[in-house]
Amino acid sequence: MQANPILAEAVRGNWVENRHRGAFIIADADGRVIASGGDVERPIFPRSAIKSMQALAIFERHAMEKFHHSPEELALACASHHGEDMHVRNVAHFLDRMGLSVADLECGAHMPTNGKAREALRASGQGPSALHNNCSGKHSGMLSVALAMGVPTSGYVEREHDVQKAVRAAVERVIGEPLTEDRCGTDGCSIPTWAAPLRAWAQGFARMATGRDLSADDAAGAQKLFDAATSHPHLVAGTGHLDTLVMEAFKGRVMQKGGAEGVQCGAIRDKGWGYALKCDDGNMAASHVMIAALLLQYADPDAAQRAVLEQFARQPTKNVRGTVVGELRAIGI
Amino acid sequence: MQANPILAEAVRGNWVENRHRGAFIIADADGRVIASGGDVERPIFPRSAIKSMQALAIFERHAMEKFHHSPEELALACASHHGEDMHVRNVAHFLDRMGLSVADLECGAHMPTNGKAREALRASGQGPSALHNNCSGKHSGMLSVALAMGVPTSGYVEREHDVQKAVRAAVERVIGEPLTEDRCGTDGCSIPTWAAPLRAWAQGFARMATGRDLSADDAAGAQKLFDAATSHPHLVAGTGHLDTLVMEAFKGRVMQKGGAEGVQCGAIRDKGWGYALKCDDGNMAASHVMIAALLLQYADPDAAQRAVLEQFARQPTKNVRGTVVGELRAIGI
Repeated sequence: MQANPILAEAVRGNWVENRHRGAFIIADADGRVIASGGDVERPIFPRSAIKSMQALAIFERHAMEKFHHSPEELALACASHHGEDMHVRNVAHFLDRMGLSVADLECGAHMPTNGKAREALRASGQGPSALHNNCSGKHSGMLSVALAMGVPTSGYVEREHDVQKAVRAAVERVIGEPLTEDRCGTDGCSIPTWAAPLRAWAQGFARMATGRDLSADDAAGAQKLFDAATSHPHLVAGTGHLDTLVMEAFKGRVMQKGGAEGVQCGAIRDKGWGYALKCDDGNMAASHVMIAALLLQYADPDAAQRAVLEQFARQPTKNVRGTVVGELRAIGI
Repeated sequence: MQANPILAEAVRGNWVENRHRGAFIIADADGRVIASGGDVERPIFPRSAIKSMQALAIFERHAMEKFHHSPEELALACASHHGEDMHVRNVAHFLDRMGLSVADLECGAHMPTNGKAREALRASGQGPSALHNNCSGKHSGMLSVALAMGVPTSGYVEREHDVQKAVRAAVERVIGEPLTEDRCGTDGCSIPTWAAPLRAWAQGFARMATGRDLSADDAAGAQKLFDAATSHPHLVAGTGHLDTLVMEAFKGRVMQKGGAEGVQCGAIRDKGWGYALKCDDGNMAASHVMIAALLLQYADPDAAQRAVLEQFARQPTKNVRGTVVGELRAIGI
């Protein structure tokens, strides 16, 4: 297998300690390649980076008409939230509005991603619930689809459940190619995840950004989802996270979402470009460095946006006593 | 730069999600290569994997004659311990025997590596001390060298301090080549770390295992250190860790030590072979998978040893609900 290029390196003192390879592509809705590096035809699991694409099922299955989801609820459907109070409270409200509760979530429970929220929960003596799961907003959206379809919610995470079939179909419509059983796995939150070429994810995001080659319903849904996520970036991730800070800084121009194991996807909306990036070894910090470099180069950042991106494109490494001893930095983009 | 081979891969469902590249070498004391993969001439930071090599300064600088260090103290000098009670207690005793205390350690404080020890410390309402730092045993050994040399202990972590000069000289003697300022950094515990070719680290461990091409003092010191580490493997790492379990299982035949950012070094003592391995991207779990595969193939494991190694060579990936959804596994060794 041809090796992808090195896109990030960790330097300690004056010597490179670690190297992170990866592939990236920026494409428009017609598949024209604006920029790319590495093997963009290699199928990759997009994981949480395509939650906004999966959430299109909310529109196609008329859950939107049934529940009139607020922008906050739509942002949470696209989110890998950090389990902060505002996230937990909003997801609980989201479920309550549909006559459901935390007991209906099948994502499992994990401690909040946010450090302070984790400490507060620990101090309270309570364990985490499924509301704290970073995917609880996406799962609430999937429960909404089940209710709108009039099917049992139980088992909605299973590949053969009508909800997951609807989600799969939505993704296939947007990327314009089938998702196949020979490259399928189970995500951390128990739903299926399907590998497809990096190119297809980028083009799908360009289609969502422009509506091009989408049905009127999908196009309108995509715009509502991107508007919701970029208007409520704190709901999509959390305090200090790249996705939140980038979307705040770009004020609607950039839809940005990370996925587990080094995936980054999104759209530079005003240009009509989608992008997708995968760090081969799954390192999240390295993927942050890479995507920051990509946006610095291709998203026409102003000074404030540049400042946000630069703090991710070069990240200091500190020793136990807090002295900077090196850095993780982008190369090759 | 020529890409190193893929030595570990993470599979999710039926598709490879992540790939980890690296290089490895097994060599004898004369530099004869038993097995290798990737670029073994590329200099890498060995980090904590060579603590036993650094600890040779204890012998060369007559700290051993001054303090008659116990096997437990020597094992701790080679250790990245997990901050469990037995580690903290033994390091405190080590310092006390020399008329020193935690206040003399310059490694900084971090929470214990061991989860239960971390929880217990949190529950006690206390913060970590430098005793909990995984390197506190190595630092105690370095303080012993300072006292034996009759130099101030203060600043013993600095590159120009006599202690670090003695440590550097010990490592240079063993690997048979100079450590140079153009590839030097600062380790997590504030001491210098020097990059040298993977081949040199492997050959150095073979020399320590055999005494070949070492002075009588270095050879005797190396044997005492390997004997101490392999007789007290719990002191060298901690509960459930690969280094501890492998050394326990091999009953003295294998000296095994990991270092930060995906480094693994050691010796198959009865064969007189040293080995060194670096995962290019610094992923520790991937380096565990790789070194387990290496020892399975080259260390002639019996059934019990094989069972220990196999649990590291294939590690299940679970989703939030605890279902196995994939695995991290070795390939190419």
